[in-house]
Amino acid sequence: MAAFRFKKRVYYHDTDCEGVVYYANYLKYLEETRTEQFRSHGIDLKTLAGKGFLFAVTEVRIRYKSPARYNDELDISSEIVKSGKVFLDFLHSVRRGDITLVECETRLVCLGRDFKPVSIPDDITRSLSGESAGNRP
Amino acid sequence: MAAFRFKKRVYYHDTDCEGVVYYANYLKYLEETRTEQFRSHGIDLKTLAGKGFLFAVTEVRIRYKSPARYNDELDISSEIVKSGKVFLDFLHSVRRGDITLVECETRLVCLGRDFKPVSIPDDITRSLSGESAGNRP
Amino acid sequence: MAAFRFKKRVYYHDTDCEGVVYYANYLKYLEETRTEQFRSHGIDLKTLAGKGFLFAVTEVRIRYKSPARYNDELDISSEIVKSGKVFLDFLHSVRRGDITLVECETRLVCLGRDFKPVSIPDDITRSLSGESAGNRP
Amino acid sequence: MAAFRFKKRVYYHDTDCEGVVYYANYLKYLEETRTEQFRSHGIDLKTLAGKGFLFAVTEVRIRYKSPARYNDELDISSEIVKSGKVFLDFLHSVRRGDITLVECETRLVCLGRDFKPVSIPDDITRSLSGESAGNRP
Repeated sequence: MAAFRFKKRVYYHDTDCEGVVYYANYLKYLEETRTEQFRSHGIDLKTLAGKGFLFAVTEVRIRYKSPARYNDELDISSEIVKSGKVFLDFLHSVRRGDITLVECETRLVCLGRDFKPVSIPDDITRSLSGESAGNRP
Repeated sequence: MAAFRFKKRVYYHDTDCEGVVYYANYLKYLEETRTEQFRSHGIDLKTLAGKGFLFAVTEVRIRYKSPARYNDELDISSEIVKSGKVFLDFLHSVRRGDITLVECETRLVCLGRDFKPVSIPDDITRSLSGESAGNRP
Repeated sequence: MAAFRFKKRVYYHDTDCEGVVYYANYLKYLEETRTEQFRSHGIDLKTLAGKGFLFAVTEVRIRYKSPARYNDELDISSEIVKSGKVFLDFLHSVRRGDITLVECETRLVCLGRDFKPVSIPDDITRSLSGESAGNRP
Repeated sequence: MAAFRFKKRVYYHDTDCEGVVYYANYLKYLEETRTEQFRSHGIDLKTLAGKGFLFAVTEVRIRYKSPARYNDELDISSEIVKSGKVFLDFLHSVRRGDITLVECETRLVCLGRDFKPVSIPDDITRSLSGESAGNRP
């Protein structure tokens, strides 16, 4: 399956006084990217939460290779590279043009209302295995 | 009643690429300050929220006079300057040494579980009119 | 001149545990909106900063009328309602459908490299008085 | 060498609408912790940056085991577990009472003014190998 692509502009609130995007803020970009990736498969995470299913991040591994800066337009890619009964493993990258700035692996686990892991609902699995309905600008 | 005082160190995550504290982040400092100001009067906002009373900000007026920078130690003061049946008006300032960097007025309104204004509970009003139990480091 | 319009989706990182957008985060939305408003007039704030001119916020007055929530799509409008030799006054609103959630007035002052007010460059004033080249998705 | 300990209160701005601390915000806590850990060894990161040496995060591995919530008082520990010519490896944990909420490994690399790796200055290495001057409240 092709990776989902998301564009993101860098604003002042993303940067710090070293002139670069603050390291924690990439995790915000990746939340936005995954949310739109789900949406591109017809999955609205808020609706899903209303049904009692929440995808929570349980592990992140992130490598910062080169800094993004104010006003940059970033290309973020996101791909589900592995899935289990209760989890999804994502591979993300953040690029500016040809340069890869950040690489990240993230595990999301499906939780029920009690914050305990539950099986990912079948219709979600089916939606994710189908083609993405395309990027959302 | 004397103003409540709160100290706050500036970290990278507070700053932006112009080398100064990002303008929105002072509102985070002021939330922290008001929370500790309430606590100094024996009021725990989480306990209060559990009883169905929430203090929500409905208006902020803030003037940025001089920038705070990375690693600065800021002195924040906070005072309740007016109160009504459902609201509290705070006057805040942020200083570094003798220099006033930011001045702010904030109105908090007491809301019930339906997010509609309700009278501030009597025991809260009584606690606020008593002496503060002192700053919390 | 018509107000500039900007759309903004609410993500988890914008919200707090009361289930609503955290009050400081609207200021981030408004920074993004003003930046794109300038861009719609052909003004790139980073290029301008490189020439030694910075627009800094010196005053914000913001009223929170109704809360925005996770996954909302917000319509933000921004208009320059007054300008002087060194300042621009903006009027902003944040709406969800027909409901106005937030109203805000913001003053930006043009600063030189020494962070002291300077006259807004003539070409910037001319660009701002011309028609916007339209919203940026 | 004993781990450095840092206490951190959770405020609204740290949480999201699932009622828990937002996953990116732990990285802000850990920046604060490391900064105070350096300071406890007599190292002021701002002074060091002024001399042209910057510690930048190049890799983070973080596991979220249990959520922190509004008003929690967190105990953060931080330890340098490995060091090289240009890098320091930190092991962090975030606890609430006896429960470990988050575990994290972070690599910091010493960069020069051109953002390229340089040897960690000798006096910094010496300071870090000495005893911490103790926690800073």
